[in-house]
Amino acid sequence: MTAGIAECARAVVAPGTEVVGVTSEFGPASIESHYDEALSVPGVLRAIERGEHEGVSGYVIACFGDPGLDAARELASGPVVGIAEAAMHTASFLGRGFSVVTTLGRTMGRAVDLAEHYGMQRFCRGIHACDIAVLDLHDDPDVRKVVTEACRDALEADGSDVIVLGCAGMADMGALISTELEVPVVDGVTAATLTVQSLVAMGLRTSQRGEFAPPPPKDYLTG
Amino acid sequence: MTAGIAECARAVVAPGTEVVGVTSEFGPASIESHYDEALSVPGVLRAIERGEHEGVSGYVIACFGDPGLDAARELASGPVVGIAEAAMHTASFLGRGFSVVTTLGRTMGRAVDLAEHYGMQRFCRGIHACDIAVLDLHDDPDVRKVVTEACRDALEADGSDVIVLGCAGMADMGALISTELEVPVVDGVTAATLTVQSLVAMGLRTSQRGEFAPPPPKDYLTG
Amino acid sequence: MTAGIAECARAVVAPGTEVVGVTSEFGPASIESHYDEALSVPGVLRAIERGEHEGVSGYVIACFGDPGLDAARELASGPVVGIAEAAMHTASFLGRGFSVVTTLGRTMGRAVDLAEHYGMQRFCRGIHACDIAVLDLHDDPDVRKVVTEACRDALEADGSDVIVLGCAGMADMGALISTELEVPVVDGVTAATLTVQSLVAMGLRTSQRGEFAPPPPKDYLTG
Amino acid sequence: MTAGIAECARAVVAPGTEVVGVTSEFGPASIESHYDEALSVPGVLRAIERGEHEGVSGYVIACFGDPGLDAARELASGPVVGIAEAAMHTASFLGRGFSVVTTLGRTMGRAVDLAEHYGMQRFCRGIHACDIAVLDLHDDPDVRKVVTEACRDALEADGSDVIVLGCAGMADMGALISTELEVPVVDGVTAATLTVQSLVAMGLRTSQRGEFAPPPPKDYLTG
Amino acid sequence: MTAGIAECARAVVAPGTEVVGVTSEFGPASIESHYDEALSVPGVLRAIERGEHEGVSGYVIACFGDPGLDAARELASGPVVGIAEAAMHTASFLGRGFSVVTTLGRTMGRAVDLAEHYGMQRFCRGIHACDIAVLDLHDDPDVRKVVTEACRDALEADGSDVIVLGCAGMADMGALISTELEVPVVDGVTAATLTVQSLVAMGLRTSQRGEFAPPPPKDYLTG
Amino acid sequence: MTAGIAECARAVVAPGTEVVGVTSEFGPASIESHYDEALSVPGVLRAIERGEHEGVSGYVIACFGDPGLDAARELASGPVVGIAEAAMHTASFLGRGFSVVTTLGRTMGRAVDLAEHYGMQRFCRGIHACDIAVLDLHDDPDVRKVVTEACRDALEADGSDVIVLGCAGMADMGALISTELEVPVVDGVTAATLTVQSLVAMGLRTSQRGEFAPPPPKDYLTG
Repeated sequence: MTAGIAECARAVVAPGTEVVGVTSEFGPASIESHYDEALSVPGVLRAIERGEHEGVSGYVIACFGDPGLDAARELASGPVVGIAEAAMHTASFLGRGFSVVTTLGRTMGRAVDLAEHYGMQRFCRGIHACDIAVLDLHDDPDVRKVVTEACRDALEADGSDVIVLGCAGMADMGALISTELEVPVVDGVTAATLTVQSLVAMGLRTSQRGEFAPPPPKDYLTG
Repeated sequence: MTAGIAECARAVVAPGTEVVGVTSEFGPASIESHYDEALSVPGVLRAIERGEHEGVSGYVIACFGDPGLDAARELASGPVVGIAEAAMHTASFLGRGFSVVTTLGRTMGRAVDLAEHYGMQRFCRGIHACDIAVLDLHDDPDVRKVVTEACRDALEADGSDVIVLGCAGMADMGALISTELEVPVVDGVTAATLTVQSLVAMGLRTSQRGEFAPPPPKDYLTG
Repeated sequence: MTAGIAECARAVVAPGTEVVGVTSEFGPASIESHYDEALSVPGVLRAIERGEHEGVSGYVIACFGDPGLDAARELASGPVVGIAEAAMHTASFLGRGFSVVTTLGRTMGRAVDLAEHYGMQRFCRGIHACDIAVLDLHDDPDVRKVVTEACRDALEADGSDVIVLGCAGMADMGALISTELEVPVVDGVTAATLTVQSLVAMGLRTSQRGEFAPPPPKDYLTG
Repeated sequence: MTAGIAECARAVVAPGTEVVGVTSEFGPASIESHYDEALSVPGVLRAIERGEHEGVSGYVIACFGDPGLDAARELASGPVVGIAEAAMHTASFLGRGFSVVTTLGRTMGRAVDLAEHYGMQRFCRGIHACDIAVLDLHDDPDVRKVVTEACRDALEADGSDVIVLGCAGMADMGALISTELEVPVVDGVTAATLTVQSLVAMGLRTSQRGEFAPPPPKDYLTG
Repeated sequence: MTAGIAECARAVVAPGTEVVGVTSEFGPASIESHYDEALSVPGVLRAIERGEHEGVSGYVIACFGDPGLDAARELASGPVVGIAEAAMHTASFLGRGFSVVTTLGRTMGRAVDLAEHYGMQRFCRGIHACDIAVLDLHDDPDVRKVVTEACRDALEADGSDVIVLGCAGMADMGALISTELEVPVVDGVTAATLTVQSLVAMGLRTSQRGEFAPPPPKDYLTG
Repeated sequence: MTAGIAECARAVVAPGTEVVGVTSEFGPASIESHYDEALSVPGVLRAIERGEHEGVSGYVIACFGDPGLDAARELASGPVVGIAEAAMHTASFLGRGFSVVTTLGRTMGRAVDLAEHYGMQRFCRGIHACDIAVLDLHDDPDVRKVVTEACRDALEADGSDVIVLGCAGMADMGALISTELEVPVVDGVTAATLTVQSLVAMGLRTSQRGEFAPPPPKDYLTG
């Protein structure tokens, strides 16, 4: 899945922007609960720490729950953007209100929390599950049909005019769904990648004044 | 610190309620950044999993950032309450608006997020730091004086009528500060303990309908 | 009805907590309009004044409109909690969002106002009437069936995961409805009673700083 | 005070509009606490019931706490408007944001609640007390000077551009304060009177569909 | 259409209030898009400037999008009120929540924005289109039937108790629809006219302190 | 000024992105009131219409009031982004909360409205004027010093950690202010340009479903 995600990102970046896909070294195989998400965060942070040693300019957290975003911002010397964050902001430029179509119903609450946290609640008209597990999201016609129909129903139910894909694993379906439904379909992977590219171009990084300054050194118990 | 916290809890519970203090087996020595908090969560969840094997009736997460609360609710068969959550709700029963007095300034953002998440934003009139690190919070007169003065300033600046102590390590200072400032002072450790006790008495636990149902089994990579 | 309500409260309190049920000496036989509620308040306040002479430690206002709550807090030397207030806060510990099921449709507006006033609007996903008048709420199978079906419909319509019973007269139905629908069902009478018990255990009472201080003495015209 | 209030109202109504000032037959001499307000409501409702027998076209509730407004709407066949309600709405037509200047500090919480209830929170930039008791509000130069200075300070502190007078007893000071401070000063008594006049001219009254329909008949206990 | 609108206004004003209907000298024939609205504003402002030379006391902007309202307030020496603004505020005095019924679906977004801008979002339960273009709104039975049915459906769908007519061209249908549906029906033309009449009677005009002071003189390029 | 603005934009775009600066053919020389803004919109829309004939891929509206944004989205076949919109969204990726520093005090209200409209109210901690007219904004040391000090004061007063420059004319000062104050300083011109560049790279444009579809053809009166 990481390779596919990186491919989507590479397809949109400007000449000179290099995209490196990194799979977490430890953590759950997919994220479909608060528990999964909590246990995915240490792996994300480890990857950021490695990136810092390698001189990475900025980071995308490529899971729609944006796990570990605040902590990552404390660690990184460049900007960090989550794919839910970037997708929702991007959708707000394109219409009156968007619908999110995600995987399992139990992840909808997290998307609600994020929409509020990013100020995007007023644009987010509804969050819908297509009831496909993350690891079953392959870009085959059957899966895409289920996702497409969930998007169509969401537009109708919410009176929305934009779709946000609620999982990194849907990144490669966006164009076809957009063509079929005739509305903009926003994929967070590309949106976040270009947001990071733009922030780096402007020389902008997370503020060091206060909350997101590097964390104070600390003793750690290891279990 | 765990012993002191458990002592505060034991002082208020009803006959028949047993309080067990547990220190996380792994994680940071104290929590003063988003990074610390993220890394504390796996230890909290491990402790909940142990509690489940031991037949614990309900859980208090005794750090004012309420780390891992949503994930813990997925794991526990009884109720789980965070101390920030319980303190803020409790304060809302006692006046028009409360001020939170916490440790380091960089933790204030997390308290803002929690106040909103719990619906307590309308009662939370301000969040103030006394600039004492968590591990320097001992109940000696000098420390208490700094905290007390921060509380006094907060009441004045915010026009508030209740104080919420923003760190488990302040639990034992509440009574003296309340006497000195003549306002209710809410400590989250006791508030959360009694909230759990009440939920257990009513036979209430986290809903199993949807979001907080036990997480689906999953493969985990270990680093 | 008062006896039944007190019975529910007694069933959950800790050893040493005494519950006294008091029926208002004057006012409407039940509360199903803003007019009824307004006229019920003087009786509630009279009962609080009597309680103060009798050394009562804290008060529950056992009508889901929480009539007279602010005024009662000015009079009482111990804490005062309304059953709508306690039920909504309690429900927020148990899931993503709750549905309220109440008696007559015309009382729904008051519940909306209270949810907002307590900061619980974000958890309150819907308010539903079962169209049974307060005085027709007996715990017989027919009535309980109507209430249970209203709860079932509410969960479905709202996508909620917790039920709040919107009338003190429903207090004794909670357990059976919970068993049938497999979600937590919160009754405000028990929730408020235990909240008062907890506040008393922590030595907490309404702030005397400003708004809720004892009211200034005043001449009163009597009609 | 009633005579003075009615005089202010009469000064602005159109030819053909008759204003009748009514003092409550029972209740507190002035309203400066939640307790006072609660006990004032039955007298207000009694006056409405009398007005209905006398064929009154519409009603103004002339206390800035708008006591009994919802219940009054259930009783009256014509429109009912509170002076806080009318003043706040009127102020919203005149600038970016208003400051309320009221009597005692302990009444500010009620004004906050009303601003929210009427949707005027976004226009209400601050609520300020001039610390004069209601019955000490006479239109003499000393009192007016205190109120004027409180208004001046409020404009500065809040960055507001309109003043709302927070007590019916200030009705006759508006013009002079406006001249001195060069901002619009809104008095709720005249604003509410003209709002009722306009509603009557348009043939509009409180909706009978649901919540504000006449209250169901009920047995009443009298103490 | 201007003549019909002025007639509706004249029918409700007090003796001594003169109503002058003015059609914009330039701009679109009707307003059904953001583009139309933007291009209508210069004509509205030109009319205000003329009114100032003619000694007009106050202004109503008689299009439900309230085009140019903020700019008009900078120009006018008397009060300026929009019909959406007046209608929504007026509806808030009459019930728990209103539904707006407007012309084409694409104008609903503007109404949402205005409801929020005026603080009326909490009263505005829904906005509905009857899919009749503005210039096809004649008060004939067929058109009125479509509008009436849209109102009936809106009341049901929204659980509202008041109707707001979302176009000046519907002004003359209000009374019949109200009679048929038995709820208050608010027309913004009459509501705004009477609001201006009331503001003038109270001697109130837009604050000159800051934002709405006369605009600074400026060079203008003309295309 | 247009040349300077375009220069700033060109400095950050990717290879292959061409930036064309366009000055409105008619309208006010600068925008410092609602009146100015209203009269600037027709010129903006004319420029968009020309751009459409020239095959422009996307548009930036380079005034911090984002004049005509909704109407422009109806006209343009590519994305349209305002500089206030882009700056505020961008700032939200960089810290807990931003302060806006703008030109004249009377323009602050518009910025408040925009922050809310874009959902950025929760990040926007304050809006401050440096009291320099737009046409006096030259990048000389004296002017920059005034702006820098206004930014410094804003950070302190608001407890913010990011600065948003509230005027296109400040675009070239950002880097120096950022260096001096050690916080990220966001200029809307570059932010909006890169946002448009990213939207075009992703093939995203304004939704044609409903509100922002091309406006219906219409007769126009010309004055």
